[in-house]
Amino acid sequence: KEEQQESLFEQAIEQVEPGEIALLLESLPIGDRLERWQQVAQDEQLDVLVAMRAEARGAILRTLPEPTLAALLDRVDAESLIELADDLPVAIVDDAVTRMTARQRNWFEQASQYGDDEVGRYLNHEMVLVPANARAGDALRVLLRSHYPFSDQAYLVDALGLYRGAISLKQLASLPDTQRLKEVPLLDLVPLQATTSVVDATEAVEHSGLAALPVVDTEGRLQGRISLQLALELTREEYESRLMATVGLDEETDLFSPVLQSSKRRALWLGINLLTALLASWVIGRFEATLVQVVSLAVLMPIVASMGGIAGSQTLTLVVRGLAMGQLAQGNLRALLSKEIGVGVLNGIAWSVIIGAVAGLWFGDLATGLVMAAAIIINITVAALAGVLVPVVLDRRGIDPALSGSVVLTTVTDVVGFLTFLGLGSLVLVP
Amino acid sequence: KEEQQESLFEQAIEQVEPGEIALLLESLPIGDRLERWQQVAQDEQLDVLVAMRAEARGAILRTLPEPTLAALLDRVDAESLIELADDLPVAIVDDAVTRMTARQRNWFEQASQYGDDEVGRYLNHEMVLVPANARAGDALRVLLRSHYPFSDQAYLVDALGLYRGAISLKQLASLPDTQRLKEVPLLDLVPLQATTSVVDATEAVEHSGLAALPVVDTEGRLQGRISLQLALELTREEYESRLMATVGLDEETDLFSPVLQSSKRRALWLGINLLTALLASWVIGRFEATLVQVVSLAVLMPIVASMGGIAGSQTLTLVVRGLAMGQLAQGNLRALLSKEIGVGVLNGIAWSVIIGAVAGLWFGDLATGLVMAAAIIINITVAALAGVLVPVVLDRRGIDPALSGSVVLTTVTDVVGFLTFLGLGSLVLVP
Repeated sequence: KEEQQESLFEQAIEQVEPGEIALLLESLPIGDRLERWQQVAQDEQLDVLVAMRAEARGAILRTLPEPTLAALLDRVDAESLIELADDLPVAIVDDAVTRMTARQRNWFEQASQYGDDEVGRYLNHEMVLVPANARAGDALRVLLRSHYPFSDQAYLVDALGLYRGAISLKQLASLPDTQRLKEVPLLDLVPLQATTSVVDATEAVEHSGLAALPVVDTEGRLQGRISLQLALELTREEYESRLMATVGLDEETDLFSPVLQSSKRRALWLGINLLTALLASWVIGRFEATLVQVVSLAVLMPIVASMGGIAGSQTLTLVVRGLAMGQLAQGNLRALLSKEIGVGVLNGIAWSVIIGAVAGLWFGDLATGLVMAAAIIINITVAALAGVLVPVVLDRRGIDPALSGSVVLTTVTDVVGFLTFLGLGSLVLVP
Repeated sequence: KEEQQESLFEQAIEQVEPGEIALLLESLPIGDRLERWQQVAQDEQLDVLVAMRAEARGAILRTLPEPTLAALLDRVDAESLIELADDLPVAIVDDAVTRMTARQRNWFEQASQYGDDEVGRYLNHEMVLVPANARAGDALRVLLRSHYPFSDQAYLVDALGLYRGAISLKQLASLPDTQRLKEVPLLDLVPLQATTSVVDATEAVEHSGLAALPVVDTEGRLQGRISLQLALELTREEYESRLMATVGLDEETDLFSPVLQSSKRRALWLGINLLTALLASWVIGRFEATLVQVVSLAVLMPIVASMGGIAGSQTLTLVVRGLAMGQLAQGNLRALLSKEIGVGVLNGIAWSVIIGAVAGLWFGDLATGLVMAAAIIINITVAALAGVLVPVVLDRRGIDPALSGSVVLTTVTDVVGFLTFLGLGSLVLVP
């Protein structure tokens, strides 16, 4: 069994592709991971670490002595250091910064100013720059000689570093050698602002038809670019975050983080959900007297809560996606709400008939079936309402609905479910 | 409120970017969507439809009379028709195919042979081909004149259409005009197979350092290419599918599909979850006699089930991600299992102390607290075990764990939760 992993690893090491090695190191238990790390070629180590998820990489970084870390960061570029900085001792980072070239230090300091969700933080600086008054022939030669990937365009900057336009390699090739670039029509594109959100920036690149878009700061200085490759990487991370957020975890979570560390990370989410569960139990506790007299209510009550939870989470997921893609605004909220309530009522009626019949037959009592049916309709409809409103309200308050939406929603569907079912049961079924 | 949408829409129409128009049309209730559709310029309509999600686009396609559909598909290319075909009447598709150029028809027929999760189905055919024995100067001219996006490389094919290699624009520019390409070293890349999974293909492009990778069939014939832009689009769809699958929905789900249609789509998932809930209720029903005597059990039992469900879903989400990224194999499964069980036991002990104390104090009974604590430890540990094994077993049987994992897991944690808690309660607490 170990052989399979082993051969996979040796294959990857041979192909020497940092991204693949990173994926494989992440898939190893920590002991094996540290052992394999030794086999990674020195000139690949930095790229491999950058490609790894923060938590998995931390397990390696913590074992490296300071001189090794310093050597590793000897020729670090701005992008890599931005990615690693949070997992390194401050002194090591400061030391690496002082040893950078002035240019890279400048990029690093600029990128550090932007937040986690701003594209300015992640920019690529491997781009071809030419003076705004350059001639076509010179620009073409610079572009053809560059080894940067995705460099099918050159950016024109003036003496102050201000962005003046972009020109494609193909256009350059079609111009006479001595043609001044300031006299020709350039690529028809609007540079992105460094404060643009990562989501908007990746969508802009995807739809641009170009391999990369330039990014400028508020003063119009060229800060770097976002290539399709970077956009793909950032999109992957964005979706991973959303997927992990549904269970209160981080995108950077390591498959093999130490047990104690994992337990701590997960405990918070369990704690928050415990409060929800305690609230639901407290509601049930209000009906103790009823439950003693009509035990069928205790048997059936989880069904009411669970159907509401499922229906609500369907609506919630659809709405969270709409919010993330910028497809929900004041203008269509009411229409969405009435559609979702329509779906809730319809499914509520359909399932209440079925569940009511099952419950009635099970306990040989028509009234039990009717109480069950009524509670199901109410809870599924309330769930639809909450499924729309909870994420929208959270989003407006700047709280990530992908993370906290499901807890709030479950609280609503549990409390409403138990309250209506046990409440109706108390009124109708208690002899 | 409507004005906001309206101005957004007019802005998009002016920018005339099909992807943006598609996102906006999707965000409109169906009546408005059909109205706005009329405003989309005729030469943009096809691209807008292709960019829309299937269900949202279906709402438009269903209203178009046959002659309009035929006109729309007048110059359709293979990629667009592949995307639209499922939502169109067969006769319309057949008619469009006969009107295609021989070349496009050929691409269409080839793409149709591949499944939904194979990259061959989605390939881009806008690529620059040159004969394998071409001269550098000729190849360079063809490449510089092409209007295809991301064409920084030309593909060499022989007379039989077999793929013979790729060469970059930069390399071509550095060669003497008369240099035969078959005598120079070409780009160091392995073409992808058309049967490669979409996930593997997008990762290959992301890590290739190139703007696109060529794709061949089993005989080595060039079938098309996958560009970074296509990889980004397919990655987005892949993650959207996984996010929607957690609540039994499809990536193609429309925010504003008609109420009846939505209700039907969602009913299946509610039905499956009802079976789970009924099974849990049946387990509770076995303990009716106990519940009548010890009503505190009815009050507390949802907590046991819910804590197990939350803990299990954290493990499940981590494992589903690992499976999707190919990071889980025979070799590390045991290590993962023991780590997750470790986390489960640790969190189980920690929370059982807290919850046991709360329960004991609430009902003023030490034994109740102890039963609760024991049930919590058992259920969280079982949840960890199930969180690893359920997705792995489903995956091996070819069932998508992102879709069905959570239902199976909830069944386990509900049944085990109620069974241990009520079982222990019957043994210890019944007077």
